[in-house]
Amino acid sequence: MRILVLHGPNLNLLGSREPGLYGSHSLAEINAELSQRALLLGVELTCYQSNHEGALVDRIQQASGEADGILINAGAYTHTSIALRDALLAVALPYVELHLSNVHAREEFRQTSYLADRALGVICGFGVASYYLALEAVVGHLKAKNQ
Amino acid sequence: MRILVLHGPNLNLLGSREPGLYGSHSLAEINAELSQRALLLGVELTCYQSNHEGALVDRIQQASGEADGILINAGAYTHTSIALRDALLAVALPYVELHLSNVHAREEFRQTSYLADRALGVICGFGVASYYLALEAVVGHLKAKNQ
Amino acid sequence: MRILVLHGPNLNLLGSREPGLYGSHSLAEINAELSQRALLLGVELTCYQSNHEGALVDRIQQASGEADGILINAGAYTHTSIALRDALLAVALPYVELHLSNVHAREEFRQTSYLADRALGVICGFGVASYYLALEAVVGHLKAKNQ
Amino acid sequence: MRILVLHGPNLNLLGSREPGLYGSHSLAEINAELSQRALLLGVELTCYQSNHEGALVDRIQQASGEADGILINAGAYTHTSIALRDALLAVALPYVELHLSNVHAREEFRQTSYLADRALGVICGFGVASYYLALEAVVGHLKAKNQ
Amino acid sequence: MRILVLHGPNLNLLGSREPGLYGSHSLAEINAELSQRALLLGVELTCYQSNHEGALVDRIQQASGEADGILINAGAYTHTSIALRDALLAVALPYVELHLSNVHAREEFRQTSYLADRALGVICGFGVASYYLALEAVVGHLKAKNQ
Amino acid sequence: MRILVLHGPNLNLLGSREPGLYGSHSLAEINAELSQRALLLGVELTCYQSNHEGALVDRIQQASGEADGILINAGAYTHTSIALRDALLAVALPYVELHLSNVHAREEFRQTSYLADRALGVICGFGVASYYLALEAVVGHLKAKNQ
Amino acid sequence: MRILVLHGPNLNLLGSREPGLYGSHSLAEINAELSQRALLLGVELTCYQSNHEGALVDRIQQASGEADGILINAGAYTHTSIALRDALLAVALPYVELHLSNVHAREEFRQTSYLADRALGVICGFGVASYYLALEAVVGHLKAKNQ
Amino acid sequence: MRILVLHGPNLNLLGSREPGLYGSHSLAEINAELSQRALLLGVELTCYQSNHEGALVDRIQQASGEADGILINAGAYTHTSIALRDALLAVALPYVELHLSNVHAREEFRQTSYLADRALGVICGFGVASYYLALEAVVGHLKAKNQ
Amino acid sequence: MRILVLHGPNLNLLGSREPGLYGSHSLAEINAELSQRALLLGVELTCYQSNHEGALVDRIQQASGEADGILINAGAYTHTSIALRDALLAVALPYVELHLSNVHAREEFRQTSYLADRALGVICGFGVASYYLALEAVVGHLKAKNQ
Amino acid sequence: MRILVLHGPNLNLLGSREPGLYGSHSLAEINAELSQRALLLGVELTCYQSNHEGALVDRIQQASGEADGILINAGAYTHTSIALRDALLAVALPYVELHLSNVHAREEFRQTSYLADRALGVICGFGVASYYLALEAVVGHLKAKNQ
Amino acid sequence: MRILVLHGPNLNLLGSREPGLYGSHSLAEINAELSQRALLLGVELTCYQSNHEGALVDRIQQASGEADGILINAGAYTHTSIALRDALLAVALPYVELHLSNVHAREEFRQTSYLADRALGVICGFGVASYYLALEAVVGHLKAKNQ
Amino acid sequence: MRILVLHGPNLNLLGSREPGLYGSHSLAEINAELSQRALLLGVELTCYQSNHEGALVDRIQQASGEADGILINAGAYTHTSIALRDALLAVALPYVELHLSNVHAREEFRQTSYLADRALGVICGFGVASYYLALEAVVGHLKAKNQ
Repeated sequence: MRILVLHGPNLNLLGSREPGLYGSHSLAEINAELSQRALLLGVELTCYQSNHEGALVDRIQQASGEADGILINAGAYTHTSIALRDALLAVALPYVELHLSNVHAREEFRQTSYLADRALGVICGFGVASYYLALEAVVGHLKAKNQ
Repeated sequence: MRILVLHGPNLNLLGSREPGLYGSHSLAEINAELSQRALLLGVELTCYQSNHEGALVDRIQQASGEADGILINAGAYTHTSIALRDALLAVALPYVELHLSNVHAREEFRQTSYLADRALGVICGFGVASYYLALEAVVGHLKAKNQ
Repeated sequence: MRILVLHGPNLNLLGSREPGLYGSHSLAEINAELSQRALLLGVELTCYQSNHEGALVDRIQQASGEADGILINAGAYTHTSIALRDALLAVALPYVELHLSNVHAREEFRQTSYLADRALGVICGFGVASYYLALEAVVGHLKAKNQ
Repeated sequence: MRILVLHGPNLNLLGSREPGLYGSHSLAEINAELSQRALLLGVELTCYQSNHEGALVDRIQQASGEADGILINAGAYTHTSIALRDALLAVALPYVELHLSNVHAREEFRQTSYLADRALGVICGFGVASYYLALEAVVGHLKAKNQ
Repeated sequence: MRILVLHGPNLNLLGSREPGLYGSHSLAEINAELSQRALLLGVELTCYQSNHEGALVDRIQQASGEADGILINAGAYTHTSIALRDALLAVALPYVELHLSNVHAREEFRQTSYLADRALGVICGFGVASYYLALEAVVGHLKAKNQ
Repeated sequence: MRILVLHGPNLNLLGSREPGLYGSHSLAEINAELSQRALLLGVELTCYQSNHEGALVDRIQQASGEADGILINAGAYTHTSIALRDALLAVALPYVELHLSNVHAREEFRQTSYLADRALGVICGFGVASYYLALEAVVGHLKAKNQ
Repeated sequence: MRILVLHGPNLNLLGSREPGLYGSHSLAEINAELSQRALLLGVELTCYQSNHEGALVDRIQQASGEADGILINAGAYTHTSIALRDALLAVALPYVELHLSNVHAREEFRQTSYLADRALGVICGFGVASYYLALEAVVGHLKAKNQ
Repeated sequence: MRILVLHGPNLNLLGSREPGLYGSHSLAEINAELSQRALLLGVELTCYQSNHEGALVDRIQQASGEADGILINAGAYTHTSIALRDALLAVALPYVELHLSNVHAREEFRQTSYLADRALGVICGFGVASYYLALEAVVGHLKAKNQ
Repeated sequence: MRILVLHGPNLNLLGSREPGLYGSHSLAEINAELSQRALLLGVELTCYQSNHEGALVDRIQQASGEADGILINAGAYTHTSIALRDALLAVALPYVELHLSNVHAREEFRQTSYLADRALGVICGFGVASYYLALEAVVGHLKAKNQ
Repeated sequence: MRILVLHGPNLNLLGSREPGLYGSHSLAEINAELSQRALLLGVELTCYQSNHEGALVDRIQQASGEADGILINAGAYTHTSIALRDALLAVALPYVELHLSNVHAREEFRQTSYLADRALGVICGFGVASYYLALEAVVGHLKAKNQ
Repeated sequence: MRILVLHGPNLNLLGSREPGLYGSHSLAEINAELSQRALLLGVELTCYQSNHEGALVDRIQQASGEADGILINAGAYTHTSIALRDALLAVALPYVELHLSNVHAREEFRQTSYLADRALGVICGFGVASYYLALEAVVGHLKAKNQ
Repeated sequence: MRILVLHGPNLNLLGSREPGLYGSHSLAEINAELSQRALLLGVELTCYQSNHEGALVDRIQQASGEADGILINAGAYTHTSIALRDALLAVALPYVELHLSNVHAREEFRQTSYLADRALGVICGFGVASYYLALEAVVGHLKAKNQ
C-alpha cells in the first residue's frame, strides 16, 4: 500500500509561519513523523511540497499507478484550483482533504473547496494531528476496500 | 478524562437507515466500539442520542463539570440549530464536529454548519471511522493541553 | 393498507386559530372525517399531532413497518426541519406533503420546503380538502404500486 | 357548473414523451377520463391544449362568462409567462395549478411559478391523478362557494 | 410622420379587466382618443393589439419603413420578452415604453424591463394619460430630430 | 391649483453640465418655460433647487397646505434618500418622479428609486420635455380628482 | 392584567454562561426582580423557561385566555423557529421581543428574527434591563389599549 | 449627567405626519415629557432636531464633553448615513438607537441600520414610549458605569 | 440522414438587421448555402423560421420521426423559453445550439440558455460560419453514432 | 496650477478622533503641511471641510474654472453619495480619491465607492501621507497633461 | 498563416482520463490529426500543452509575431485564470475558446469563463471534433480578414 | 533599508501591451527609474517579475530576512491568488498593493483583491507613477516605524 502526501503552497514554511495559527512543527518533522507512523501501518509513504499549482498537478498525474491513495493539504489552492480537482479526478485515486487550521473559523473565501465534494472525507482543525488522522483514515479505507 | 458523545436525530436508526450512505453498523455497535477504544486511551465515555433538539441542549448543559470534551454528530441539527451552538459555547468545552457521510458531496443545505467555526475541528466522510478519528482527535487535544 | 397522518406545530389549534386563514374545522373533526373516508377506501388510518419536532421524528421512525404511506402537514417545520426530511427518507415510505393554506401566497420563508423534493407530490391551498385529496392521492399511489 | 381544462406546451405529446417522467396516458385519454368524472360530479367540462402562449391567453379570456373555474397545467409556461398570470387575474375565475411531475424534484428554474400565489391551490407529482384531484378540488370549492 | 401604437397581452380587456387598477376606458376608446390627438398633431396613427408575442414581433418588423416611431405598452411581455427587444432594435425606430399602472408599486417581477434601457424614455402610472403623454413625447422627439 | 417643482443636486448646472447627456437648456430657461405652460393650464407654479438633501426635505414639508401636487427631479438623491421619500409621504401630496435622462440606460445604482413606488407615476428620458409631460400629468390627475 | 414571560434555550444558564456577554444575574434573580416590578405595576406575572422549541410552543398556546401579553426572549429560536411565530400569531396576544445582548453586534445569523415584524416592538442590548424595559413597554401598551 | 436627544429628518412633523403610524404627539410635547422625566431622574436633557444630515453630524460632534450619552432617533438617516455612524464613534459616547414604529414590520430598506451594531442597544415599536424607555435605558447604563 | 434547421425570432431580418453585429447574409442565402453543403455531405436539410415560440415548439414536435438531428439558433428564445427545451427533450433528437454573435460578449441576460445543458454542443460567435460548423458537428456526430 | 482639497464629514475631528485609526495630526496641521508642499511644487492650494453633503457639492461646483484638479477624502460620503459623484463629473476636473485608513480592511460597506471608477486614481491606507501622495499624483498628472 | 494550439492542465492525460467524458483519443493523436488538417488548409500549426498557468502565459506572449491566431482549450484554467485572459489580450491575436465536453452540462463553476467574452467565438461539446471545428473557424476568420 | 518590487503576470510586456491602458514605459525602464529614486532615498531595491504564481510565492518567501518591505503589482493574480496572500502574511513584511490602471474602472472581477485588506495601503490608477508613489509610501512607513 503506497500513499502520496501532498503539501500545497507556503506549507514549506511550517514552524516559522504564524506558529500561533499553524503550530511549531516544521514540514520535515511532520514528514518524518508521518513516515514513522506509515511504517507501523505497513504503508509506503512519499511526500511532496510545492508552491506551484502546475507542479502539484504534475505530481498528482505521476501518482497514477504509483500510489493507492492521496493525502492532500492543498493550502490556498484548495479554494482556487479547479486544475487540482481535475487532476485528482483524472487519476481516480481515493484522497483525503486535510487542513491544519479550522478553515470554518477563518476568512469567507476559505469556506469553499474545489476538492471536498469528491474526496473520501475531510479533516481540519487539529494542527499536525490532522495529518496523522488523515493517514489513518485513508489506510483504513484502503484496507476495508481490499478485503 | 471524560468524553461525552452526542448523536443527533435519526442516528438511532443507523444500520437500517440507507446503509449505502450511512453504513451497516448499528448505533449500539458504534457506542460499544467507541467505549472499547476509549478504555484503551484511558478515557471515560458517555454516549447519548436524541431526536429532540431541546433534549440535546439539556444534555450539553449537564455536561458542564461532568465532561472534558464533546464529540458531536448533530446530524440534521448541524445545519439548523443555533440553540446547540449556544449550548456548546455556554459550557465552553472543546468539541469536535463529525459526520458519517461526506456532507460536501450532498445537498446544498448540508454545506452550512452552525457548529463548525467554534469547534476544535471537523471530520466527515469516513463512515463509522469518523467517530474513531474524532475520539483520537479530542483525546490528543486534551492530553496536549494538560501537559 | 395503513396510512399515518401527521399534523405539525400549532395544528392542534385548528378551528380557533386565524379561521379566516385556516378554516373553522377543529383537528378532531378533520381526523374524524379523514377516518371515515379512509374506511370507505378500505384503509387503516392513524393520526398524530405534536408541536415538538423531535416527537414528530420519533413518530415517523416508529411508522417503519407499521404504515405503508404518510400524509404530512408539517406546518412551520416544513420550512425549518431537516430532521423531519431525514426521518422520512430513513423510513423510506411514500409521503404526500400538504398544507391547508396556499403557501405560495404567504411570507417568503414559507416558499421553501425541506420535504417537497422527495415527496410523492404536494397539495396546498384547499383548506381541509387538502387532507382529503392527499388521502386519495396516497391511496391511489399505493394501489397502483401494489397491482 | 362549467370547468375549463387548460393544457400547456408539449402536453399534446403525453404518452409518447418521456413516459418514465410523465406517464403512459395520452392527452386524449386524460381528457376522456376527466370528462367522465366531471359527468359524475354534474359538471360540464371543456378541454384545450396549445403550444402557443398567446393562444392560451386568448382561450382564458374567452372563458370569462363561459366557465366557473379553471384547471391549468401550464407546463413550461408556468415558469416563464406573466401573460398567463395576467389573463387569469383579468377573468377573475378561481383556478387550480397542477403538474403531472413533482416540480420540486426537478430543475431549479421549475421551482418558480407565476401562477401559484394567486391560485386557489396547487397540486403536483401524482401523474394523471393530479388532474383528477384538481377537478375534485375546484368543484368542491365552487360547490362550497355556491352554498 | 407615422406612429405605430402597440398594445401587448390582455390589453384588449381594458375597461372590464380590474378597472380599479387599469381604469374604465376600453381599448377602442383609447385608440379613438389617441387617433384624434394624433390628427391634431398632424401625425398618422396605427394601432395594433395582440396576446401573441410572435405576432407583436411580426408587427414590429413590418413597421420598418412604415412608421417613424413606436409607442409600446408591452404589458406582461415587458418583463419576459427578449424577442420584442430584439425586434425593436432590429427595426431601429425610436420607441417609448409606457404602462397604465405604476409598475414600481407592483410585484417584484414587474420591476425589470427588457425594453427600457434602449427606449427613448419610459412613462408609467398615469392610466390612459400615459398613452397621451407618450404620444406627445415621441412626436416631440421626432419633430426635434427632423428640424 | 398650485404645483411645486423640485430640482435636486447638480441640476443648477443644467446647460453647462454634460450637455450631451442633459441637454443645453439652463435651469432658469426650464423654469421659465414651465411657468408659461403652467399659466396656460391655469396653474400656479413654484420652483426650487438645492444641492442639500435637508433643504429639499425642508421645502417639501413647507409645501403642506401651500401646494396641491409636486414635480420632483431628485437627481442623485432619487437613489440614496429615504428622507425625501418620508417627507413626500408625510405631506401626502401627489407627486410625479421625473428624470431628464433615461436612467434605465445608465449605471446600475441609478436603477433603484426610493420615490417611485409611492409616486403617481414616473417619466424619464425625454430631456426637458420630461418636465413638461410631468406637469401635464400632475395637472391632469388633479383636475380628474377635483371633478 | 396578566403577563407571560418566556425565556428560550440556554437562558437557564444565565449568570454562569459567558457573563461578559450576558451579565452575572441568574434567571431566578431576573424572574424575582421582574415579579417585584410587576407587583408595583399591578400586574400578575408568570415565568417559563425551556430549551425545547415544542415546549415553548405548548406554553404559548396555553397562554390563550390566561395572559394579556407576552415578553419573549426566544434566544437562539428567535432566528430559527417559525413554529414560535405561528404560535404567537395563533394566540393573537401582543408580545415584545427582547434580547440581553445587542444582536446587531453579533453573528450575521442573529440579524434575522422570525418574531420581530409581528411584535409590538423590540428591545435589545441592555442586559437584564432589557427585561424591565420590556415589561414597562407591554404594560404601558395594555393600559393604553384598555383605556 | 447630561443626555443629548437627537431627532432626525421629518420628526418635526410628528403629530401631523401619518398619525396612524407615528402617533398624535407633537415633537414639542415629546421633548417636554422627556425633560420632565429626565428631571425626575436627575438628568440634564438637551433636544435637537434637524432634517439635515450634516447638521446632525455637527451636533453630535459638539456633544463631545457636553453630554454623557445620546438618544438618537435618526429616522430615515438610520438606513443611509455612514456619516452619522462615524460621528457617533468619533465622540465615543454611549448611545441608544430608537424608533417610534416597529421598523421590522416596514419596508425592506428599513431593516438595515448603520448605527445599531455600535449602539448600547436598540428600542423600536412603542411609539413615544420608545423615547421614555430609551431614556431609562441610557440613564441606567450610565449610573451602573459610574458606580 | 435528415437534419432540421430552426431559426428563431428576428432571424428573418438577417442581412438588413444590425449588419455590423449579425453580418450581411440574408436568411435565404444562409439556407441556400447550408443546403448545398448538406448535399455534399449526403444529408437532407429542412429549414424553418418563426417569430412565434409556439410555432417553433410545433415544428420541433413534428420533427419526431422526420429528422435525425436539429440545428437550432433560437435567438432571443434561447434565454427565455423553457417550452423549446421541453419540446427538444420530448422528441429526444440530438441538437446543436448555435448563435451568429458571441453571446458571451453581450448583455448579461444572454449569458443563460435553457437549451445548452442538454445540447450535443454549443457554437457561437462565427457569424454565418456558426451554421456551417454546426452542420458539420451534427453530421459528424450522427455518422459516428451510426457506425 | 490650482488644486482644491476637500475633506468630508468628521475629518474636522482629526487628531482627537480615534487616533489609533486616523493618526494624531489635526486637520489644520495637515492643511498647513499640504500647503507648504504645494508651494514647493509651485501649486496654489485651497482646502475645504464640511460635514454637509450639499455644502461639498456646492464647493465642487464652485471649483469649475477656479481649480485644475481636486483631492477628495470624502470620508463616509464616499460610500453613500451619488450627488458628490455627479458634481465631480459635472465640473469635469481630474480628481484623486484618498483615504487615511485602509478601507479594504474595514467594514463591508466601506468597500464600495461612488467616486472611484471615475477618479484619476485612488490612494488609501497611509495616514496623512495619503494626502501628500495624492497631491504629488494629481500635480504629476496635470504637469504631464500640460506638456 | 500560423496557428498556435494551446492545451491546458490535465489534457496531457487525454485517452486515459475519464474516457466516457473526454473520449479515447490521446493528445498526440489529436495533435497529429490537427496538423494533417492544417496542412490541407495550408496552415502552419504549433501545439503546446502545460499544466502550469504561468507556462501557458509565457507561451501566449511568445506567440506575438509568431502566430496569426490561437486555438485554446484552457481546461480548468478557463474558469480561474485572469492571467491567461490578460496574456491573450496583450498579444491581441484572434482566438477561439474550445472544450471537449459540454461545459454547460457540468458543475456550476464551469459555467463561467474568463476568456469567452473576448474570444472570436466558443465551441464546446463535440469531443475531439471541437478542435477540428475550431481550426476551421479560426482559419475561415483569418482568410476572410485577409481578403 | 531593502525593498523588494514584485511584478506579476504580463507586466514583462509593458510598453508594448495595450499602451493606451498601461502606458508606453517598458518594465526595464520602470525598474531603472525606481532604482534611481530608491538610491536617492537611501534604499536598496530588488526587482522581480514572473508570470508564474508559484514563482512569485517562492520569491516572497525568500524575501524573509532579505527585505524590509514589498511593493507588489500582482496584476491578474491580485484577483485570483490566495497563495500570494498567504505568502505575504507568512513573511510578515509590510507591503503596498499597486496597479498601473484604475482597477475600479474596469471589469467587475478586478474589483476584488485577495491582498488589499492586509496591505499597508493601496495605490492605483496613476500609470508608472503608481510605482513611484508606492515606493515613497513604503519608505515613509518604514522610516516612521524605525524612529
